[in-house]
Amino acid sequence: MAGDDQRALQYEQTLMYGRYTQELGAYAKEEAARLREEGGWRRSVRERSRSLELLEYDRSRCAKCRICTVRCQKFLISRVGEDWIFLILLGLFMALVSWVVDFAIAICLQAQKWMYGGLESNVFLQYLAWVTYPVVLITFSAGFTQILAPQAVGSGIPEMKTILRGVVLKEYLTFKTFVAKVIGLTCALGSGMPLGKEGPFVHIASLCAALLSKFMSLFGGIYENESRNIEMLAAACAVGVGCCFAAPIGGVLFSIEVTSTFFAVRNYWRGFFAATFSAFIFRVLAVWNRDEETITALFKTSFRLDFPFDLQELPAFAVIGIASGFGGALFVYLNRLIVQFIRKQKTINKFLMKKRLLYPALVTLLVSTLTFPPGFGQFMAGKLTQKESLVTLLDNRTWAKQGIAEGFDYIGNSQAWNHPQVNVFVTLVLFIVMKFWMSALATTIPVPCGAFMPVFVIGAAFGRLVGESMAAWFPDGIHSDGTIYPIVPGGYAVVGAAALSGAVTHTVSTAVIVFELTGQISHILPVMIAVILANAVAQSLQPSLYDSIIRIKKLPYLPELGWGHHEKYNIRVEDIMIRNVMYITLNCCYRDLHDVLLTGHLKTLALLESSESMILLGSIERAQLQALLSLQLGRPRMLEYLRDRATAEKKRLSMVSHPGSEDGSQRVNQEVRFQISTEESSFSSTPTPSMKPLKPALKRPSVVDRPPDISTSPQDHSGNTLKNLFCVNPETEGLEDDFDVDDDMTIREIAEWEENQLDEQVNFDNCKIDPAPFQLVERTSLHKTHTIFSLLGLDHAYVTSIGRLIGVVSLKELRKAIEGSVAVKGVKVRPPLSSFRDSGTSGSSSSNSENEATELHKLWDRHKSMSLPREHLASDSDEKSQ
Amino acid sequence: MAGDDQRALQYEQTLMYGRYTQELGAYAKEEAARLREEGGWRRSVRERSRSLELLEYDRSRCAKCRICTVRCQKFLISRVGEDWIFLILLGLFMALVSWVVDFAIAICLQAQKWMYGGLESNVFLQYLAWVTYPVVLITFSAGFTQILAPQAVGSGIPEMKTILRGVVLKEYLTFKTFVAKVIGLTCALGSGMPLGKEGPFVHIASLCAALLSKFMSLFGGIYENESRNIEMLAAACAVGVGCCFAAPIGGVLFSIEVTSTFFAVRNYWRGFFAATFSAFIFRVLAVWNRDEETITALFKTSFRLDFPFDLQELPAFAVIGIASGFGGALFVYLNRLIVQFIRKQKTINKFLMKKRLLYPALVTLLVSTLTFPPGFGQFMAGKLTQKESLVTLLDNRTWAKQGIAEGFDYIGNSQAWNHPQVNVFVTLVLFIVMKFWMSALATTIPVPCGAFMPVFVIGAAFGRLVGESMAAWFPDGIHSDGTIYPIVPGGYAVVGAAALSGAVTHTVSTAVIVFELTGQISHILPVMIAVILANAVAQSLQPSLYDSIIRIKKLPYLPELGWGHHEKYNIRVEDIMIRNVMYITLNCCYRDLHDVLLTGHLKTLALLESSESMILLGSIERAQLQALLSLQLGRPRMLEYLRDRATAEKKRLSMVSHPGSEDGSQRVNQEVRFQISTEESSFSSTPTPSMKPLKPALKRPSVVDRPPDISTSPQDHSGNTLKNLFCVNPETEGLEDDFDVDDDMTIREIAEWEENQLDEQVNFDNCKIDPAPFQLVERTSLHKTHTIFSLLGLDHAYVTSIGRLIGVVSLKELRKAIEGSVAVKGVKVRPPLSSFRDSGTSGSSSSNSENEATELHKLWDRHKSMSLPREHLASDSDEKSQ
Repeated sequence: MAGDDQRALQYEQTLMYGRYTQELGAYAKEEAARLREEGGWRRSVRERSRSLELLEYDRSRCAKCRICTVRCQKFLISRVGEDWIFLILLGLFMALVSWVVDFAIAICLQAQKWMYGGLESNVFLQYLAWVTYPVVLITFSAGFTQILAPQAVGSGIPEMKTILRGVVLKEYLTFKTFVAKVIGLTCALGSGMPLGKEGPFVHIASLCAALLSKFMSLFGGIYENESRNIEMLAAACAVGVGCCFAAPIGGVLFSIEVTSTFFAVRNYWRGFFAATFSAFIFRVLAVWNRDEETITALFKTSFRLDFPFDLQELPAFAVIGIASGFGGALFVYLNRLIVQFIRKQKTINKFLMKKRLLYPALVTLLVSTLTFPPGFGQFMAGKLTQKESLVTLLDNRTWAKQGIAEGFDYIGNSQAWNHPQVNVFVTLVLFIVMKFWMSALATTIPVPCGAFMPVFVIGAAFGRLVGESMAAWFPDGIHSDGTIYPIVPGGYAVVGAAALSGAVTHTVSTAVIVFELTGQISHILPVMIAVILANAVAQSLQPSLYDSIIRIKKLPYLPELGWGHHEKYNIRVEDIMIRNVMYITLNCCYRDLHDVLLTGHLKTLALLESSESMILLGSIERAQLQALLSLQLGRPRMLEYLRDRATAEKKRLSMVSHPGSEDGSQRVNQEVRFQISTEESSFSSTPTPSMKPLKPALKRPSVVDRPPDISTSPQDHSGNTLKNLFCVNPETEGLEDDFDVDDDMTIREIAEWEENQLDEQVNFDNCKIDPAPFQLVERTSLHKTHTIFSLLGLDHAYVTSIGRLIGVVSLKELRKAIEGSVAVKGVKVRPPLSSFRDSGTSGSSSSNSENEATELHKLWDRHKSMSLPREHLASDSDEKSQ
Repeated sequence: MAGDDQRALQYEQTLMYGRYTQELGAYAKEEAARLREEGGWRRSVRERSRSLELLEYDRSRCAKCRICTVRCQKFLISRVGEDWIFLILLGLFMALVSWVVDFAIAICLQAQKWMYGGLESNVFLQYLAWVTYPVVLITFSAGFTQILAPQAVGSGIPEMKTILRGVVLKEYLTFKTFVAKVIGLTCALGSGMPLGKEGPFVHIASLCAALLSKFMSLFGGIYENESRNIEMLAAACAVGVGCCFAAPIGGVLFSIEVTSTFFAVRNYWRGFFAATFSAFIFRVLAVWNRDEETITALFKTSFRLDFPFDLQELPAFAVIGIASGFGGALFVYLNRLIVQFIRKQKTINKFLMKKRLLYPALVTLLVSTLTFPPGFGQFMAGKLTQKESLVTLLDNRTWAKQGIAEGFDYIGNSQAWNHPQVNVFVTLVLFIVMKFWMSALATTIPVPCGAFMPVFVIGAAFGRLVGESMAAWFPDGIHSDGTIYPIVPGGYAVVGAAALSGAVTHTVSTAVIVFELTGQISHILPVMIAVILANAVAQSLQPSLYDSIIRIKKLPYLPELGWGHHEKYNIRVEDIMIRNVMYITLNCCYRDLHDVLLTGHLKTLALLESSESMILLGSIERAQLQALLSLQLGRPRMLEYLRDRATAEKKRLSMVSHPGSEDGSQRVNQEVRFQISTEESSFSSTPTPSMKPLKPALKRPSVVDRPPDISTSPQDHSGNTLKNLFCVNPETEGLEDDFDVDDDMTIREIAEWEENQLDEQVNFDNCKIDPAPFQLVERTSLHKTHTIFSLLGLDHAYVTSIGRLIGVVSLKELRKAIEGSVAVKGVKVRPPLSSFRDSGTSGSSSSNSENEATELHKLWDRHKSMSLPREHLASDSDEKSQ
């Protein structure tokens, strides 16, 4: 765990969900670059080895035969590179994993039942067995996951959503995580807690795809392409859902809805292909294992086909939908509340963080105590496993006849619902209420688990409740035309399950999953109506469960545009963009660079042609600029300067000529440059050399590293400081002549030298410049901006007007704009600058943009004048400290 | 028709499908701009009237009450603006349309049957009735559509695909088209020809959405937003399919697969919501009309639930899938072949174009003669309508027992398949073969019609054939474990229908449509397997039917990337881009503008800062530049010049001072400018004033307008020529002083004046500049480029390197690259410049791009030297003609 934490720098391990403390973008990009380089190296090695092989073959006698073999091999390898081979392998493997996990879970649950059954004589021992078993399993699962790969905790769908948006969360797709997730999930579900396997299976399938991709890349180079990998991950998500529920279509749709914002239809077939194959193998395994006679649905129902429901029952279905909407929102809220409550209570949090396994154990103890069948569990069908309850709930026979459950002979598991003293309605209500908070609580346990299945069961129970009520209310059915068609409560359960799970996940495709799970599509219209209503209610109240977790985990995300908020079409980029962009120009000097780096915090900086033309040339990463600056002010250059000075000194001593001519010309050159840029950077063009040396200002961002008293001590070597600030490995270089030269220079000399260095023009030759950063226009609507950002996975875009940079929009602004308008709703949300727009609606864009530009200049000047005092303050404090 | 044709400029009416002869982009953009302006005007009018109303209210006595009313009204209006109201209205309306159309079709078909039944005594009269009825209906449909709105012809899905890609095909969404499509479709389907209603319904729903949007925009301004309209159109497509088949889920998926390349998941709910509501109303109407007892599927089946199929039947399903794949490709090919054959045979084409209604009449005559029940029709169940055949084909009872159809009592329509002399297998085979070519032929008739339903029926028949064979082969079923589960041929029919329609349309979602149509999902795995196999086969052989029609109609499109073509990931933009981009610079003179306009044909031109820096500032449309040039060389300026000269003359006569000082300074200014741009445009900087006057060169593009002998006559006024060339309305202005000034100038003077004008610097002030044209980098992969192009609906993108323009990629290049690599397949497709890339794979992007830039300069120079002779030639010929 320790090693893993070290690698995944920004991941903070918290009690329930991990949390990201820093923006991941930069780290992810570096990792991606590193991986790419590694890939390139590996490829070249492979190619070399291949050619070596060929050479060897040529030497041997039977050349023809060998060549043929090589060709066959090549052909096979090229086939292996095909997508469908990959997808079949993925589907096959995931089906096996799903089946094995299911099998193991079934054995675990059977073992618990067997233990519970064997101790029937002693209630206390029975209780101990009933409680200890899940506590041990959950604790093991939690501990195992924490030790091996803490990233395996939770559902995995939020992470996949983030990854498919283009963010590289590398540590999420490792073999360790795979092992931890599979074993942790099996144990967690084997405990009988109200947890699901869907979300984790999405993660497991993605892990499989990533690992398979890595494995396959030993054969062909195509597996190293990034965009292809993302396509494959999207297909893997579909496989995950598909093989979990044996629901290929629903799986594809659910994974699209849950993980994508924009879906490429050309990848559609991948998901369908892999998910179908996977579901097929998953069900075939069941047939081969003699569990089933042939391939059928997982929770097969047998409702009436000829008259599934009456038209007049539709209001009841609509009620289920609306109530499920509220229920779903409540579930998400409750889940978040629990997490936030425990996080906020610092004493609890601290205590639990120390004893990490205590929290899962306590929760499990509580839940399993309450479901203990001879205890409170008898009133809520506590002895049934999740699967058994679902099967009984979807049963097509009516439990309640004439209002009270009496005439019906409960067979098999159904009798768990039939408590001798208590009405079946009470059992159902208790089941719903208890399972509701239990599920919300249980899904916060740090084990690999999903919330889909528990919610699904609760929804089914709620639907059943409504259905039984209807059946009790209309014992002979509603239909008026002679024939008696009694009401089927099972159909209501199907509707309820789809509606509640749809509300929690904010998806419509749960409807399709329900059809595939039950193998019947006769209730399509009620299900669709209920799911849509539930979504409408839930989406207006709460984010989806996955978005909620994304927020809790602080994953980098972009919120969705809500339903039908018109103001989105009216907000424009000019209303939300930041106008005082930090930029550098092609002909700027290191001092400007330094100032810009000190004031801004953006990851990338715009590179302009010049500050008059404001023409955008590209963008440079902050790190690159820091490297440039450190190179300029670094030790090696100083040493070189000293050496030069020494030789010049020697020369002067030997033949007394006039030195410094080169330096003088350079200075003139710089002055010309400064004349040009005076209008903008009046502050930096009036250097007051010895009064406020720049060294301490440079040091300021790094006060965290060392206490201030050290930095102000006269023994300090500014070159070293700089290195500590910016360089990656400051220790290795220039150590041999550390002492013999440094002592030559006084602090004043160093400062002067640094001043000179800062006045030089920046050389961008070795700098990586992003040559085409994404550009928007002022008039781009928020709606379109959101689309473009989520389509292309951007994290910032520059706003230009005829090539001139006039602003920048980052994810942050966009998020703020969207959330602002989502929160308030209505016409009130008039963003600060939108009034400008109304004046010039049509035509004359050039004149308009000119106004914009002059306004920008004003803004820029204002910013400059505002930033001046701050700068002065900084130097004041520096003077004090000197 | 004439009026419509005038408006829809580029639409050429051909025999079967219309064809686009020009690129639509420019026209569409102009139209969009015009519409937007109109909208703005309307809004301002509306606002004024509203404020007037408010004033009136204020004057009245009961002010409070009135204010309340106004508020209520406002609230209602704001509600009307909500998406869901729009979607409900759309769903409701489309359900009504669908139901009415179905009702009318049913009546038409009943009438035919009644006529046919009433004349049973005389076979000849019977034949006449059987044949005349459809011929009349189809001819009426064709004629009506042609007269009212020729755009209503055909399916409509290809057009919707194009529209959703961002191309404005305005004439496709008018009320006229709506009327023509609905009435034409009803008549065409009422004739009993093998035609479908799905494609047209997608179009009708889109028409509805567009018209409703227009209507709703009377209430709120939001309906004028373009991107919202496109979202609504996407939802409308789903509604179209949904209410046609009562299949909301399948409808949404099918419409996504067929019309989108990238789908925004946030629009998902719109489609589901509207389609569900529409399907619901559609089925409720059937219940209210006492056609059905309750809401069920359209083609309800009642297959066995407990054992739908055996595992060992899966190979048979796979065979159906593969065969359907080939069949689907053949269908698309056959359809295209028929269109192309008739188009190529010029004599046939000419004859048929003159008598437009002859072709539909002939085709109908042929088809209905062959299906005449007492004739050949008896061997192919000719008397059944499409719907009846489908119902019988999906029947769950087996027709063939023990190899020969003997023991089974055919009830109702099923007996049509049971010819006393002929085996049921022969009937099925004949049905399949005949219907196959009939459908391919019938869908080329210029009436509103789709091909989905006919193909669906053929697929069902093929599936049934396989099923019956299996049933005959294994009379007691395949299952080995005691229980007898006989084979259900109806299940095979379902599989076949889904597979063949999936193969023709290249969609997977036909599987879902099939489940919703039949109301049973038990065969999910066989259907999915067959559909995927069929798609795999068909997609590797032929484009989808809709893509095929797009190509025939020459709609602006971008082909899809094929399945798993790896080389797409290796081709980069630098390999396909055009390197010698036509550009203009900020400081260019009108001569450069003129040269650029003469040589290039692109719709937009890049605007650079200068030809040394090559920094891209934006792009300007060709039309804008032409307007600029015409303004500079136009009559008003010449008149002004003459007036100035006259006054100067007068002045000189009155007081003999030194004139032309202003002109001189301007000339100096220009010379300085030329010095700067000499390196690049050496040709244009060496003016040879009187030797080759520019006027005739300018005239050259417009020789189409007037015969050359007129333009070379000495009486010609060059100003007028220019106006004719570029101006929009040349007649209205400057007529009064036409004769008194023009005669003052000789041709030589005019030429000189024009020379001077051309040397002036271009003033871009009143020019609309696109400030942020889309930019790519050289290393962007083809795959990503394709993604971006289809995501954002671009038609060209500039390739830049650190702000400098180095190339351009348009849809054409992209299409070429994709089709090239699709056609050849394999490693052979090594694009011309890809070898450059291999040398510098990693890092050092800046140095790399510099090489690129120098290479670009070389290329540019070469281009210049190559273009010189052409220019000379042009002027030579002009000299000759003078």
